[in-house]
Amino acid sequence: MRTPVDLRGTRRREAGRTMADEIAEQPEALARLLDRGASAIRATARRIAERRPRFVLLAARGSSDHAALYGKYLCEVELGLPCGLASMSTVTAYGTAPHFADVLVVAVSRSGGSPDLVGFTRAARRGGATTLAVTNNPDSPLAEAAEFQVDVLAGPERALPATKTYTAQLLALHLLVRGIRDREPTEARVLPALAARVLARSREVRQLAARYRFAGRMVVTSRGYGLPTAKETALKLMETCAMPVLGSSGADLLHGPLAAVDTVSPVIAIVTEGSGGDALQPVLDRLHGRGADLMVVGPASQARAASAGFALPTCGLPESLQPIPEILPLQQLAHDMAVARGRM
Amino acid sequence: MRTPVDLRGTRRREAGRTMADEIAEQPEALARLLDRGASAIRATARRIAERRPRFVLLAARGSSDHAALYGKYLCEVELGLPCGLASMSTVTAYGTAPHFADVLVVAVSRSGGSPDLVGFTRAARRGGATTLAVTNNPDSPLAEAAEFQVDVLAGPERALPATKTYTAQLLALHLLVRGIRDREPTEARVLPALAARVLARSREVRQLAARYRFAGRMVVTSRGYGLPTAKETALKLMETCAMPVLGSSGADLLHGPLAAVDTVSPVIAIVTEGSGGDALQPVLDRLHGRGADLMVVGPASQARAASAGFALPTCGLPESLQPIPEILPLQQLAHDMAVARGRM
Repeated sequence: MRTPVDLRGTRRREAGRTMADEIAEQPEALARLLDRGASAIRATARRIAERRPRFVLLAARGSSDHAALYGKYLCEVELGLPCGLASMSTVTAYGTAPHFADVLVVAVSRSGGSPDLVGFTRAARRGGATTLAVTNNPDSPLAEAAEFQVDVLAGPERALPATKTYTAQLLALHLLVRGIRDREPTEARVLPALAARVLARSREVRQLAARYRFAGRMVVTSRGYGLPTAKETALKLMETCAMPVLGSSGADLLHGPLAAVDTVSPVIAIVTEGSGGDALQPVLDRLHGRGADLMVVGPASQARAASAGFALPTCGLPESLQPIPEILPLQQLAHDMAVARGRM
Repeated sequence: MRTPVDLRGTRRREAGRTMADEIAEQPEALARLLDRGASAIRATARRIAERRPRFVLLAARGSSDHAALYGKYLCEVELGLPCGLASMSTVTAYGTAPHFADVLVVAVSRSGGSPDLVGFTRAARRGGATTLAVTNNPDSPLAEAAEFQVDVLAGPERALPATKTYTAQLLALHLLVRGIRDREPTEARVLPALAARVLARSREVRQLAARYRFAGRMVVTSRGYGLPTAKETALKLMETCAMPVLGSSGADLLHGPLAAVDTVSPVIAIVTEGSGGDALQPVLDRLHGRGADLMVVGPASQARAASAGFALPTCGLPESLQPIPEILPLQQLAHDMAVARGRM
């Protein structure tokens, strides 16, 4: 007969296996979205483009909020539109009736069930917005509330920490913005193979996880397209290891929280190959000057120069698509650190 | 002759005194802005209202970014407009030429010197936005770059942690939005006296600081109008005590980071009297259920029911103005904790 302690141990190990399985499914999930979802997204994007939205608001919580932040960068850089992340409480708690003509509202959610998000989307639609739900559940209240919807086709996700739904949301948002610009998403085709190649390097990640076995706190930083990855990594580490992790823009880090970085707060820097990575360089120099322990996920030269690193192959991927392979070793890191600490 | 160690000690104590002096100056700074700044802000607001902005983007870093978040809530709730916080790198690092017709860009900065903010404001103006700089330095590059400007009249601020410039920015944004609505800012008149009354309770705050003498990490949470206060408190504590502090929306806290809250992570909840405080209640219940140590800054009944509290008198102040008195005991707390830890 098992003792309650054993049962808890069994459940933890099951949770860990579920998360590991879902991390491993990502190449397949990305391929499925490209093969079976892309044309529907393209058709939806065309109808949205006909509305000629002039402003974009993205609404989400948790991991989906980091996918929404990625969508914000995409819409700002690729469409040149002013964008914001919605503060849903101004509508759902304060009861504002928003003036949303010419606004595209993109609600991003794994389950499509959050009442806050559903309430906000309904109010936005009443206020004149074009509304789009990006979910992993086409039968959800959110998909029902929005005028348009995109199914990210990631399959059921059972682990609490979102992994395959997150990368599927990123790819869906990329396909959407490409579609709004009426462009073929040719560059994305390399993603399933690239994701498989990155995930195969699990031994490297286990060695990195061992470095952080006793870390009591961490900082994750980036700029530009890498920022959603930094925030998502911080959340993953908090969810799996129950430790405080600051996920911060490098630009904001220099305005105060840098004081909290010292030799006991290891730093993970996400360095995308491109303008965002270049803009992070002064922050990396400052961290180096403070003697911070720095792990870099990014170009091989940067990964080699840091205290530790994971050299990310990009296969010529544009910077705007790098967030998809970039998060993979960090999901594995969160999982492996939790296993090493007996939490999974 | 002083040893180098003594010199460092002297400098620390000086930094602490400077911060304490600037915290104490706030009733005077608020009165000055109401007496000498309000009419100029009203005139500026009228000219901005004539442009009929349809979308608002706020741009800032650090403490000013929390003032900008307050401005976002104000513009959403009081003006019903879609609003966003600008990701400046999409313009300054990625070189996007933004389509900003009908957009009001509000750049908030203590010094008005941040190159990122100046670059973004210039590009926004070229892109057709109505641009406004809210600074404590009317001769700054930012004030020069924007079409309109508001001087928050806080006087020179020398301490690294922003205090009086933060509350002055909040009041300036309140006056601006009132002006855009062509309303008299009568409710704000009570603020200088109320601020003095709150700051006089420094002994209570010192006792609260003693509770957290050995805390290694903290969580600060709120919803709605209290959220900027939560984020600003987290930054103040990180700046003064160099410890990791998570400043998070209560709604986001439930989507993951709650795992990082346990009996060793004390929680500070900012409970505004109104819809934001009501929306926070389910989060407080969950924290209570997890046995979290909870300090409440808010209504007396809530402050009494928690592990510790600071009962905030509101004198009938509307919820939208409560963030101004609300941050004051938390600024004092950050200062007092740093003094108790020998960091100031």
